[in-house]
Amino acid sequence: MWRWRSLLPLDDGPIRYPLAIGDTPLMASPGLRRVSGFSQLYLKDETRSPTGSNKDRATGLVLEQGLRQGFETVTAASSGNVAVSLSLGAAAAGLRAVIFVPAHVSEGKLRIMLLVGARVFKVEEGYEVAYRLSRQAAREFGWLDRNTGANPATIEGKKTVAFEIWEQLGREVPDVAVVPVGDGTTLSALWKGFRELRACGVIEQLPRLIGVQAEGCQPLKCLCDHVAPPYTRSHTIADGIFVDAPINGFTAIRDVRDSRGAFVAVSDEALLQAIEILASAGGIVAEPAGAAAFAGLDPAREAGLIRQNECVVAMVTGTGLKTPHYLQSTGTVFEIRGSLREVDKAMASGD
Amino acid sequence: MWRWRSLLPLDDGPIRYPLAIGDTPLMASPGLRRVSGFSQLYLKDETRSPTGSNKDRATGLVLEQGLRQGFETVTAASSGNVAVSLSLGAAAAGLRAVIFVPAHVSEGKLRIMLLVGARVFKVEEGYEVAYRLSRQAAREFGWLDRNTGANPATIEGKKTVAFEIWEQLGREVPDVAVVPVGDGTTLSALWKGFRELRACGVIEQLPRLIGVQAEGCQPLKCLCDHVAPPYTRSHTIADGIFVDAPINGFTAIRDVRDSRGAFVAVSDEALLQAIEILASAGGIVAEPAGAAAFAGLDPAREAGLIRQNECVVAMVTGTGLKTPHYLQSTGTVFEIRGSLREVDKAMASGD
Repeated sequence: MWRWRSLLPLDDGPIRYPLAIGDTPLMASPGLRRVSGFSQLYLKDETRSPTGSNKDRATGLVLEQGLRQGFETVTAASSGNVAVSLSLGAAAAGLRAVIFVPAHVSEGKLRIMLLVGARVFKVEEGYEVAYRLSRQAAREFGWLDRNTGANPATIEGKKTVAFEIWEQLGREVPDVAVVPVGDGTTLSALWKGFRELRACGVIEQLPRLIGVQAEGCQPLKCLCDHVAPPYTRSHTIADGIFVDAPINGFTAIRDVRDSRGAFVAVSDEALLQAIEILASAGGIVAEPAGAAAFAGLDPAREAGLIRQNECVVAMVTGTGLKTPHYLQSTGTVFEIRGSLREVDKAMASGD
Repeated sequence: MWRWRSLLPLDDGPIRYPLAIGDTPLMASPGLRRVSGFSQLYLKDETRSPTGSNKDRATGLVLEQGLRQGFETVTAASSGNVAVSLSLGAAAAGLRAVIFVPAHVSEGKLRIMLLVGARVFKVEEGYEVAYRLSRQAAREFGWLDRNTGANPATIEGKKTVAFEIWEQLGREVPDVAVVPVGDGTTLSALWKGFRELRACGVIEQLPRLIGVQAEGCQPLKCLCDHVAPPYTRSHTIADGIFVDAPINGFTAIRDVRDSRGAFVAVSDEALLQAIEILASAGGIVAEPAGAAAFAGLDPAREAGLIRQNECVVAMVTGTGLKTPHYLQSTGTVFEIRGSLREVDKAMASGD
């Protein structure tokens, strides 16, 4: 990631942050192109980041700045991936992490935070209060604040994904970029990256942005469409985009409009199906929020927002290895003893 | 990985395998150097492979060859990581995978195999019989055989890790390379890679190899030391190196001796501790077998096999995200409501 440092808020001098961030694959998967019907589909596979999500870009830049400024403690609120990213990143950098999580945080992610010795506070009132507490603690105790949207370095770190996409497409940008939207920083960071490429004079056209929310938690889509949410109490299995009051919401709406894009919403069933397709046709294991962009392709096409022959990049933002309970399948295991006879039978019975 | 193709058994023509393999980080972690006492320690972080283990190098080359030869079905026996690697790799490449696993396979790995539609046979008698059945099925049904050690492409693919280490160390090789040893192919592949570098005339000295086995399953260390195993029935939590009759065993012993290296054994407790240290001081989440090389540093030093100022590369072969039950910690989560008072108290009470 650091080869883009001339476009990052970072002084000269050696990089001290030890994890290797960025340069994730841009996958042209024949299987996913066939199944989705998008002939020029690319997946930006951020599951290959050090801790399995695109949050590592933000964590890396924030901690590199923090190391240079002499911070010893860093804090963030997070529904899961930021918490894992910051816990492991801080551990690798020799900093102490203080994490504020909402009650619905997944067990696997919690295990990793505790394994590396992060101080973890579970906030009963949920993410928004956790966020407020984390920011307040940073001010009061003099800790480094890595909260999404609060620390501008989170957007600066995440914008590098736009530079990589441009480079990997042979110095071009796609017609459309599709991203999951919770707080909206991934989307706004991507947009900032593309705009900087234009400001540098290396591209002319900017991509349209499609922001994907969950049907059960779609504040930005509803705001954009001037409708009330179709639920009284929000809920989705996609913890990464389960955000009722997006920190960066208004900016994300502005960016989507500026790009002549739109928001779409996907159901939890569609997310589970997208997880299965990404794995079985593309070999990528995603978590629910991480599969949202791919799941959003169908509704975006149905709404006339994308044509199937356009060049489309969908971001896969987080790995499913941390959330194995969502890796569901109807397949069965055949138990056999040491003979091929049963193998033959089982193979014949299957599809 | 394909940039090494002039040293791989692969004809010209475009690469069809869609997953991006190789180019994993070689980490110089200040935290791990301090904790381990090895001042020139590097971690080759193979957890950053597409499916989280170094098996992806072998899978990639085998499937690239298979695609060119027109195979439709591929098979392997595996205690877990090969199974995941082959299931996802075959899914991405549009091939059908038939996997033979022993009964002790981990739940998380099994979920991934089923998610992508692999045909999975659980063999009651264990890994050795599973291996025999898989090979027999390949012959009988005309399937591509991706069994470790049986298909020479598995060694050829895995040897590329030696080329990368050499490149990442500034075109030098380390004094010592430390690797986990189950079947012994990772070790022999590394050795083959280093020998090819010497044959190419780009290095003179070869590294010493330290092979790390589990105390509860150490057939090669015992054979090498001319002693009987210190157990009547083998057992270890490290499924990746839980192999009683290593396919590539005699070759691995020869390679270790040729390198003037040795085998060491580590306990399950040492593996769990290594997992915690790798994460909390290095930011790397490893599974038990994946942490074995790092865990082997201590006994290797105590046995006088490595000096602390030597350049040492330890391979981290597999991610711990697939085996969350081994991510254990004594840490606790503090449950709070929306005020900083309890945060202050909890922070003061801690270390």
